Amino acid sequence: MSTEADSADEVEPTPEQDTQAQSAAESEQDDDSPARDSPPAVFKLTSTVSTLQTVVSAVDPIVDECRIAVDDSGIQIQASDPSQVAMVDLQVDAQSFTQFESTTGVLGVNVNRLDEVLSVVDEELVRLVLDPQTNTLQVSSDEMTCTLSLIDPRSIRQAPSHPDLEYPAVCQLDEDDLDLAVTAGKKVSDHLYVVVDEDNPELRFDARGDTDSVTYRREPGDLVAFEPAEAASKFSLDHLSEINRALPSGPTRHLQIGNTIPLVVRAPLPGADGTVQFLLAPRTDD
Amino acid sequence: MSTEADSADEVEPTPEQDTQAQSAAESEQDDDSPARDSPPAVFKLTSTVSTLQTVVSAVDPIVDECRIAVDDSGIQIQASDPSQVAMVDLQVDAQSFTQFESTTGVLGVNVNRLDEVLSVVDEELVRLVLDPQTNTLQVSSDEMTCTLSLIDPRSIRQAPSHPDLEYPAVCQLDEDDLDLAVTAGKKVSDHLYVVVDEDNPELRFDARGDTDSVTYRREPGDLVAFEPAEAASKFSLDHLSEINRALPSGPTRHLQIGNTIPLVVRAPLPGADGTVQFLLAPRTDD
Amino acid sequence: MSTEADSADEVEPTPEQDTQAQSAAESEQDDDSPARDSPPAVFKLTSTVSTLQTVVSAVDPIVDECRIAVDDSGIQIQASDPSQVAMVDLQVDAQSFTQFESTTGVLGVNVNRLDEVLSVVDEELVRLVLDPQTNTLQVSSDEMTCTLSLIDPRSIRQAPSHPDLEYPAVCQLDEDDLDLAVTAGKKVSDHLYVVVDEDNPELRFDARGDTDSVTYRREPGDLVAFEPAEAASKFSLDHLSEINRALPSGPTRHLQIGNTIPLVVRAPLPGADGTVQFLLAPRTDD
Repeated sequence: MSTEADSADEVEPTPEQDTQAQSAAESEQDDDSPARDSPPAVFKLTSTVSTLQTVVSAVDPIVDECRIAVDDSGIQIQASDPSQVAMVDLQVDAQSFTQFESTTGVLGVNVNRLDEVLSVVDEELVRLVLDPQTNTLQVSSDEMTCTLSLIDPRSIRQAPSHPDLEYPAVCQLDEDDLDLAVTAGKKVSDHLYVVVDEDNPELRFDARGDTDSVTYRREPGDLVAFEPAEAASKFSLDHLSEINRALPSGPTRHLQIGNTIPLVVRAPLPGADGTVQFLLAPRTDD
Repeated sequence: MSTEADSADEVEPTPEQDTQAQSAAESEQDDDSPARDSPPAVFKLTSTVSTLQTVVSAVDPIVDECRIAVDDSGIQIQASDPSQVAMVDLQVDAQSFTQFESTTGVLGVNVNRLDEVLSVVDEELVRLVLDPQTNTLQVSSDEMTCTLSLIDPRSIRQAPSHPDLEYPAVCQLDEDDLDLAVTAGKKVSDHLYVVVDEDNPELRFDARGDTDSVTYRREPGDLVAFEPAEAASKFSLDHLSEINRALPSGPTRHLQIGNTIPLVVRAPLPGADGTVQFLLAPRTDD
Repeated sequence: MSTEADSADEVEPTPEQDTQAQSAAESEQDDDSPARDSPPAVFKLTSTVSTLQTVVSAVDPIVDECRIAVDDSGIQIQASDPSQVAMVDLQVDAQSFTQFESTTGVLGVNVNRLDEVLSVVDEELVRLVLDPQTNTLQVSSDEMTCTLSLIDPRSIRQAPSHPDLEYPAVCQLDEDDLDLAVTAGKKVSDHLYVVVDEDNPELRFDARGDTDSVTYRREPGDLVAFEPAEAASKFSLDHLSEINRALPSGPTRHLQIGNTIPLVVRAPLPGADGTVQFLLAPRTDD
């Protein structure tokens, strides 16, 4: 893990992310600035259980505790794993929920406990209500009421900020294809080269182990979308596998690939007006 | 476990149980009294494999070795776990079996080995025959014959006897509802309050952990039967989960709840003329 | 394991095996004799993934690394487990493959790695091509290319040679019946007597544990084929269970049983022109 941290650049932002971060910062300043790190005065939402589970599943493999930034436009989560190699950036618009009412603030949530509690709600809808007095989040359905203690957001590590980056190559591929690339790579190695070839246009995943190697190719006809450009970077398969598990099931994956810069993997949140995006720092040890 | 044993009353009987115990005692005395702890002279039964598996599955989570009291009316098993917090009381009438012939006596059986052996009988019917000469139980189908060594019943701990108790509240609920109460409770705590509210009539399961809590409610309309009365007791979730797994799949669960007295959980044995009943001592540490 | 090796005879051949070994030896000598332990000059095959997986699954439980003898007629694998108690002898004719081209030689293959790589080929056909320059085996489909390093065949233990044996009794039984014999036996013991009774004709599996025993009987009407003769031998259930898992799913199992000589278990390879045969040395400790 320390080798990984040493040999990997820290995750850098995509242009989109930067814009999002900016607009989030603006909306925070529209409100009152101590809100940046305090719970909101009001936070109430009603949602399908499945939408909240998709959100939680995307964050759970990356961090144990996360800061959920909320305001009247919806929720946003940015978090990086302890080694700062993988980062998740997720936002869900207010209209994705059956009901949503929130002032600006930050909730400190134990992701795994929220996941556990959602798993026992045996109904379609669930309601989340902040009780600022007790600093708890009430998660309730018609028959079940769970009360989760919130964590002081200031005690939760913030995701690193990151400069603007240009990505030469963009590919969109099926869920199963990224899954196969990761599974096949792990059979022989602990890292994977993600390569885009412009002349002989293809997206290529290359895993080279001590004795064996695997190459998995996707040609333009196999891809949902493809903007080729010469690009190649090497990534940790453990982290890539973590991100692959964290992605919502169903939608195609949108990749942005550069030369020894972080990989961007993005997917829309199914059944919601929102997006989850992962950044994975490259390995630079060769 | 020792804390559990210290803080929990020993299991107490239900009125029904007492009557059963009495009638069992009577029928034993009709026979010859050394039979109380000796194998019967004759024991032969033919049964569907599924009926015997239901019996064994109900006892297996509570004890490794059990005493099966048999006479011409059927079989009865009373056993408590080593901490004497959970107790099973099960009886199956002779007419539940395809064929049944037995004198009065007690069989000492390794429950887990009987379970294993039943799991490999690939036919509908199985026959159990005691061989008093070798003190073995022959478990056989058309194609398979297993011989299990019996244990001296005197070497197996007897379930504690227990006084008569009055239960104010009675509820009957679906299998899935009890299952959900136990599953949800275990997400946040190691004990569960089972509460019946008379004024605002409902059955309520309350789990309070160090940081989080879960409440699961069933109103009269959600219950198969409900005789409300103010009642509340606290139970170990480990033991309640054990009992929940031991219950036969299918039938609704009949609960008797009092104030800091043992919980009674009862269900009929599906496809047989018999009942299984569990008693769980309350935790009295608060 | 050492007790096992001490108490068990080494595996002995069946008449069929001997003939196969001879013909293999002849065809090797038709070529050039150093080929006996060297990779062939040419080896290329195209096969359904499922046929190759059946081959690999048959060998994987017995050895980690194996020698695949190849010539223009097909492939043959003979391998014994480290204790030399269980042996696999497998051959697949060239016409079983979509395409097959090979000179005489031996490939040294890591069975488990080949298995892993086949598991990620998500297409119907797979192509194996030897690259003699790099001593690697290329396993490829349309979209996936894996390169496996081969092992020097001389560093892989050869299966022991074995004399000719007469088998008095032959039985052919359903996959599920052998499975049940092994599963039931393991419930009570670590060894199994395989017995053929001629007078009261039946095939009998007898497991005798310290306290319990299981007997599973198959009468002539339950068997696909039966040539009875008095025969009885005792085998390790661990090894028999290993062989049972290694057998291809589907076809009936052909058993040859003698008196304290190796058990022969044989099955055709489904969807191919080939056979897999296991020999299991008897336990002779009683």
